[in-house]
Amino acid sequence: MLKEIDTYKKISGERAAEFIEDGMIIGLGSGSTVYWMMKRLGDLVAKGFKIQGVPSSNRTERWAEEFGIPLTDFGSVQSIDLAIDGADEIDNRLNLIKGGGGSLVREKIVDALADKLIIIADESKMVTTLGNFPLPVEVVPFGWEVTARNITQLGCTPTIRQKNGEIFVSDNGNYILDCQFSDISNPKQLHSSLKSLVGVVETGLFIDMAELVIVGCNEGVSIVK
Amino acid sequence: MLKEIDTYKKISGERAAEFIEDGMIIGLGSGSTVYWMMKRLGDLVAKGFKIQGVPSSNRTERWAEEFGIPLTDFGSVQSIDLAIDGADEIDNRLNLIKGGGGSLVREKIVDALADKLIIIADESKMVTTLGNFPLPVEVVPFGWEVTARNITQLGCTPTIRQKNGEIFVSDNGNYILDCQFSDISNPKQLHSSLKSLVGVVETGLFIDMAELVIVGCNEGVSIVK
Repeated sequence: MLKEIDTYKKISGERAAEFIEDGMIIGLGSGSTVYWMMKRLGDLVAKGFKIQGVPSSNRTERWAEEFGIPLTDFGSVQSIDLAIDGADEIDNRLNLIKGGGGSLVREKIVDALADKLIIIADESKMVTTLGNFPLPVEVVPFGWEVTARNITQLGCTPTIRQKNGEIFVSDNGNYILDCQFSDISNPKQLHSSLKSLVGVVETGLFIDMAELVIVGCNEGVSIVK
Repeated sequence: MLKEIDTYKKISGERAAEFIEDGMIIGLGSGSTVYWMMKRLGDLVAKGFKIQGVPSSNRTERWAEEFGIPLTDFGSVQSIDLAIDGADEIDNRLNLIKGGGGSLVREKIVDALADKLIIIADESKMVTTLGNFPLPVEVVPFGWEVTARNITQLGCTPTIRQKNGEIFVSDNGNYILDCQFSDISNPKQLHSSLKSLVGVVETGLFIDMAELVIVGCNEGVSIVK
């Protein structure tokens, strides 16, 4: 049986699949909530929907295979009709922190190319101000210690992400610094300051990108625009 | 016997070694001019100079080994006393285009950490306005076609760098787009616009970083500050 929070993820993900139309090119986000959207999308494909998916992580690619969702790549598509993705934190202006799963660069490339981005999440992800969740920042491995020191000067404590006792390596072969700020009152400015640093590949701040959020909660789903 | 341009490179590189003092931590740039500086630095080490080098490319690392130059890394150093590096183009404000050799990210991390950056070059690299040399931009391989399209909108024709008929991969595992602009009248603004794009890791524009340039020419060297 699913735990409460997993039920919220499931209903949010399944609801998002209703926005998918036959013939669309779909950006497939990453994470446990996206799993449920993709499972439902697999059903649509089985029913005859002609869609093509652009996956944003290796794990998403494996799910697509599991659910029989046809994939395409950037060499073949000029744009994406709709991207559906998860998030780690969402503020009331629909700015996001993403990257807890470590695929923030790919997710941002996919999401930025989409005409419309729908975010799916359980209600625990909704916040007033971003920053309780440590901000993931993807950095080049070479000289990451220097990059971390430069980031510290922006007012946070960065921690190099580890997995099984070793430094975690992203799908792009980079490292991730999880940066704990006291709060992020101006996400746009912070993103810009971080991204401009030498060695920073991308930040987990997704600003002015999401069009709507489908929040799974006790009452079912609520749609935030 | 060396060709004329190689002689210019040699005298420029050798002259730069005179700025190195015993005890310094030295940022070791990349490229054929740097080779001559390192050869001379090897002589200094043999004479008893206690220096430590921070290499900016795999090739530089191999030269350091060849010339007996002790190396260190970013985990061990807080700063670099002096970096000596080459460039592909240098304007009269000492702004640079670098990255022809494909190590621009590492070079920029090393050069930016240095208290002082000396650029060494033959006279053919000096220009009034940057941009005749195509600007190298390092990008994440995932979705590089999308990133290239976004860069095109800034007014250039990007070409994916190839080597032996395959896409060239940088020391960081990324691709390089060589971007031909008509000219680069505002390098600072262009760098900022490029760097802010999703998928762009770094640009080959080095702005306000070089303190002096040692130019090898027919008359010996000229020092530009």
